[in-house]
Amino acid sequence: MFFASDNGGPAHPRVMEALIAANDGYTSGYGAEALAEEVRGELRRIFEAPEAAVYLVPTGTAANALILATLGNPWDAIFCTAMAHINEDECNAPEFYSGGAKLVTVPDERAKMRPEALRAAILEHERRGVHGAQRGPVSITQVTEKGTVHTLDEIAALTDTAKAFGLPVHLDGARFANAQVALGCSAAEMTWKAGIDAVSFGGTKNGCLGVEACIFFDPAHGAEFELRRKRGAHLFSKHRLLSAQMQGYLAGDLWLELAAAANSACALLTAGLAEVPEVDMPWGAEANMIFFTAPRSLHRRLQEGGARYYVMDGDPAAGAADERLTGRLVCDWSIGAAGVDRFLALL
Amino acid sequence: MFFASDNGGPAHPRVMEALIAANDGYTSGYGAEALAEEVRGELRRIFEAPEAAVYLVPTGTAANALILATLGNPWDAIFCTAMAHINEDECNAPEFYSGGAKLVTVPDERAKMRPEALRAAILEHERRGVHGAQRGPVSITQVTEKGTVHTLDEIAALTDTAKAFGLPVHLDGARFANAQVALGCSAAEMTWKAGIDAVSFGGTKNGCLGVEACIFFDPAHGAEFELRRKRGAHLFSKHRLLSAQMQGYLAGDLWLELAAAANSACALLTAGLAEVPEVDMPWGAEANMIFFTAPRSLHRRLQEGGARYYVMDGDPAAGAADERLTGRLVCDWSIGAAGVDRFLALL
Amino acid sequence: MFFASDNGGPAHPRVMEALIAANDGYTSGYGAEALAEEVRGELRRIFEAPEAAVYLVPTGTAANALILATLGNPWDAIFCTAMAHINEDECNAPEFYSGGAKLVTVPDERAKMRPEALRAAILEHERRGVHGAQRGPVSITQVTEKGTVHTLDEIAALTDTAKAFGLPVHLDGARFANAQVALGCSAAEMTWKAGIDAVSFGGTKNGCLGVEACIFFDPAHGAEFELRRKRGAHLFSKHRLLSAQMQGYLAGDLWLELAAAANSACALLTAGLAEVPEVDMPWGAEANMIFFTAPRSLHRRLQEGGARYYVMDGDPAAGAADERLTGRLVCDWSIGAAGVDRFLALL
Amino acid sequence: MFFASDNGGPAHPRVMEALIAANDGYTSGYGAEALAEEVRGELRRIFEAPEAAVYLVPTGTAANALILATLGNPWDAIFCTAMAHINEDECNAPEFYSGGAKLVTVPDERAKMRPEALRAAILEHERRGVHGAQRGPVSITQVTEKGTVHTLDEIAALTDTAKAFGLPVHLDGARFANAQVALGCSAAEMTWKAGIDAVSFGGTKNGCLGVEACIFFDPAHGAEFELRRKRGAHLFSKHRLLSAQMQGYLAGDLWLELAAAANSACALLTAGLAEVPEVDMPWGAEANMIFFTAPRSLHRRLQEGGARYYVMDGDPAAGAADERLTGRLVCDWSIGAAGVDRFLALL
Repeated sequence: MFFASDNGGPAHPRVMEALIAANDGYTSGYGAEALAEEVRGELRRIFEAPEAAVYLVPTGTAANALILATLGNPWDAIFCTAMAHINEDECNAPEFYSGGAKLVTVPDERAKMRPEALRAAILEHERRGVHGAQRGPVSITQVTEKGTVHTLDEIAALTDTAKAFGLPVHLDGARFANAQVALGCSAAEMTWKAGIDAVSFGGTKNGCLGVEACIFFDPAHGAEFELRRKRGAHLFSKHRLLSAQMQGYLAGDLWLELAAAANSACALLTAGLAEVPEVDMPWGAEANMIFFTAPRSLHRRLQEGGARYYVMDGDPAAGAADERLTGRLVCDWSIGAAGVDRFLALL
Repeated sequence: MFFASDNGGPAHPRVMEALIAANDGYTSGYGAEALAEEVRGELRRIFEAPEAAVYLVPTGTAANALILATLGNPWDAIFCTAMAHINEDECNAPEFYSGGAKLVTVPDERAKMRPEALRAAILEHERRGVHGAQRGPVSITQVTEKGTVHTLDEIAALTDTAKAFGLPVHLDGARFANAQVALGCSAAEMTWKAGIDAVSFGGTKNGCLGVEACIFFDPAHGAEFELRRKRGAHLFSKHRLLSAQMQGYLAGDLWLELAAAANSACALLTAGLAEVPEVDMPWGAEANMIFFTAPRSLHRRLQEGGARYYVMDGDPAAGAADERLTGRLVCDWSIGAAGVDRFLALL
Repeated sequence: MFFASDNGGPAHPRVMEALIAANDGYTSGYGAEALAEEVRGELRRIFEAPEAAVYLVPTGTAANALILATLGNPWDAIFCTAMAHINEDECNAPEFYSGGAKLVTVPDERAKMRPEALRAAILEHERRGVHGAQRGPVSITQVTEKGTVHTLDEIAALTDTAKAFGLPVHLDGARFANAQVALGCSAAEMTWKAGIDAVSFGGTKNGCLGVEACIFFDPAHGAEFELRRKRGAHLFSKHRLLSAQMQGYLAGDLWLELAAAANSACALLTAGLAEVPEVDMPWGAEANMIFFTAPRSLHRRLQEGGARYYVMDGDPAAGAADERLTGRLVCDWSIGAAGVDRFLALL
Repeated sequence: MFFASDNGGPAHPRVMEALIAANDGYTSGYGAEALAEEVRGELRRIFEAPEAAVYLVPTGTAANALILATLGNPWDAIFCTAMAHINEDECNAPEFYSGGAKLVTVPDERAKMRPEALRAAILEHERRGVHGAQRGPVSITQVTEKGTVHTLDEIAALTDTAKAFGLPVHLDGARFANAQVALGCSAAEMTWKAGIDAVSFGGTKNGCLGVEACIFFDPAHGAEFELRRKRGAHLFSKHRLLSAQMQGYLAGDLWLELAAAANSACALLTAGLAEVPEVDMPWGAEANMIFFTAPRSLHRRLQEGGARYYVMDGDPAAGAADERLTGRLVCDWSIGAAGVDRFLALL
């Protein structure tokens, strides 16, 4: 009953098999191995973007920080929500990689940046000439940090706003597959067709061990990215460690299959929680992550029963029994109906 | 009728005289000249801080950014208000000098950081371990960017909050003298006696040409500051250019005399504006800067009459005559009653 | 016949098995998993350093850059040889991670920094006060980039020189195991007993896929390192990817076994080359890497025969047949006597 | 008898007068004042470069570091001599401002970079692809740090070499005027006509208090420079402090007059020293700086007689009387024949 994070589960066996298969014999490294080219081609095919520049890095933070540094300048404002992973959970990696850009937080609704608020924030950064931070990249997260999913129109409304000022837009897709499954759209529709310029395409949380793809739809960014990646110490010599994971992840649409499994488990969980009168779910459940508010006594029962998840705003073990606390449940591909049932049985 | 900024006026003749006097013969530079030692001693005397480490730099942004970089780390959050000069008007200089720290904005009331909001922001930056920005320096501005002045108790409430978590506190005193005059306190009372660790002590806006002092009450910060200053290209070879200005500024308490003149002019201005029914002054006037809201038609009349000042939220020359816009009036030492009277006569 | 790099070969089956075994069920990540603690303990045992701070990162460049940034300051000189990997092959990663330190190259003899030259370089960096780069960490490479191995006395002579000025010493041990086997000493003897403060302990080149340990013998550096690692985007969520590799690598002294195999293959290669009259080996062969000078015609024969290795100073395929060019041969654990024999048969 | 540095003397009276004249009334700042535009126009006229982007900063280190950061990238190699001010005397400011570029030292002859050595260094930085530092700006110093002056042909030979690889060339002209007077050429001939892309045009050492111009012959660099200047805290609010100095410095060709005076004093000094049998002058004297080698006893006599200058390689007051030490003599505009005669009288 591990719902603490989709980082806590195992890699999928087919990812492991790809890794084992790739670990044979001698090869070039640093992304020059044949397998890397194969994987880049596969991602270009999936994204319907034959010209895209595609790279693999080991962590989501590396993908986000390297992409944003490539899209912007040190004197820029990077527009994001307050709860964006880049703002809250990366220990200033975007600031570090960009050489000191400023993350400007834009008001959100259910963790989605509001287009009119984005427009206001951009406008605010015009008035001061060289004195203020300059207008820079916009970064949005899909699935958001609260488990909501932008519709295609919502993405387009944000990219339209950014593009009216000539600003590039980055999509933090640590849970890209879960969002795509939730929307039932194509990868292209969720990205460049909706105005996205660059994507962090997550693998780690959805069945891999540690690999994310960085995709620029304008390949002109590629040369700079390659230098930033190397300088950031994220260019692997035995790069097949990354290529092989991504190969296994993409083959036979495993990535979509695993996301569908995770989303289904989360839907079951949500349905079960919805039947508990004491439970609220402030942001709903749209992909594989659900926040729920309940009395401490309920959280205590769940955790004593073996459920592992984060309670965001208090200690479930200590305090008034009826105080309401918010827990976060994340399903990865491996949870399955059985795992969910055991959890629900505790309620 | 120049009310656009206290940066627009001339240096005081006594500052110029000190500069001319110092420009004679040969001397060591880089702050090793005798005049620099004299000025450092004078500042230590004024601040009743015989051990303080004292440095001169040419701009307020340099003072702020160098001090904050010295007090904190690249992975820190620096706590400030949204309208803080370091956040809005320094083109990411604090981010640059700190190596990528994140400026976290804390809710304010009348441009003063609220202690309970500071406490909440600090607490928020504990929960995430290495994932979030770490707790770093707190920076407050006195006189604030809206013309308000923290009382000594208000400063102490903020520094108490910071110190409960072991965090250092910086005072951006670009208008230090105006605040001190407004409060009728000593420099020590407004700083280390109220818990401040380091001060940007402004000269440029109050009768100098370009000099600010950086004062650390704990001299252990000195060695690092000296390297940061040199690396930032702010160590002057002919350092007497800085020392002499500060000498002239401090001698005979000229700095307090000039601030008193500026504050008086602003008080006259405020009294005059208060008699105009259409005028509101949202933040009051406590030192030498006043914001006032009035119909566009009034702003137009003033500006056409030759008054120079910034209208923050619209174009006074174009738009509905009755739309209310906010102007900012800043008095420097040289405005005098005559300047104010001419302005008020336009009303 | 792949002698291009010890990065080109496969991971050892026991490393892969450890990875598969670790990929089971749910666990904490970010180095908080039990396996990580086990591996840290094992490294502390191997290094006879029960207090050491130990971390895992995916690349050697990450290990070097993060350690040097932790040991020094942005205004420092980092002393290394001209051919040091940190100077030539990391695309300014040390400069990036340190915030702008300067790599100062110290004359070498057979790729080993000369102690008296180090002393001279350190002295040179005293005279300029704040104007010059400050004295910072010393970094030495073992096995060196030319395949030579520092004796324990040679290491001690360098660390003694550094310590006379209070400077910390880093060992870039991308080929640590090969050096240790070559010297027949313990890990402690080659490091802290010889005055080393921090080690990049390589796994990638010697049978792993992508893992290096960062070891600080003074654990006081740990807290800063952890923040730098996260900020550099090198903290893995599914950290068991790193822990498991290192577990498999250390278990049963596999790491020493593999290094011995690589060194033996290289010794065979060297013996074979020594019998070819046209061949010179300028730096000798002390571990698993050998440089050899031979006429272009010989290189051409080897490469046409299927031998893969770098020729450092010219194109083996084009130019005068008798021009002497230098090739680099590196043996990894998997080459074996058969691989060497096939190469020698081409001579 | 102050020969320690051309930073030790006073500003010229006409510079001070310009400063006093400019300190009158209200004006825009930040380089938007009319005086700034006048000065920019004057520099464009002098350099015969009507399109040039021109900026003023207070220190030579700021000029160099800001220009190099603008011309290059964080992952670049910046090519310079070992004794270049940017390499030895700026405490890593170029590394800081560039975001971590690497200064690569190119062998020199009499402090002038050798073109073939530059070419070799550039070629060396091609081979490593993304692994090595990338080819970046070339920086040369005129007058060099040893007092020598590049001929126009020597400058052209270096810029030709750089341009063959598409690399920009920066001229550190802290002593620009002294070099121009020494060569008897125009400012355009010594810069863009000889292939220079950007210049640090010094004022501080030659009669100003603290001002240097940054000149880009391709104005496309201007927008980035302006943001870097502000972010580096080098944009002055009361910018007339800089403009006025430069105005006084340029008016009536004062800058050339002062440089001629300094060079003449140095020539007298050199002629006098040449008559002393114990004295050697290893690099000759071509502008306003001369290095001379003499027994310690001679240095002691000079210094006891009141001559102030640096002895580079030992303590003149302690040690064997006949040990030969090297002193550096720098003449500023104010030394005059009388100052030189007093020095020579001590010999």
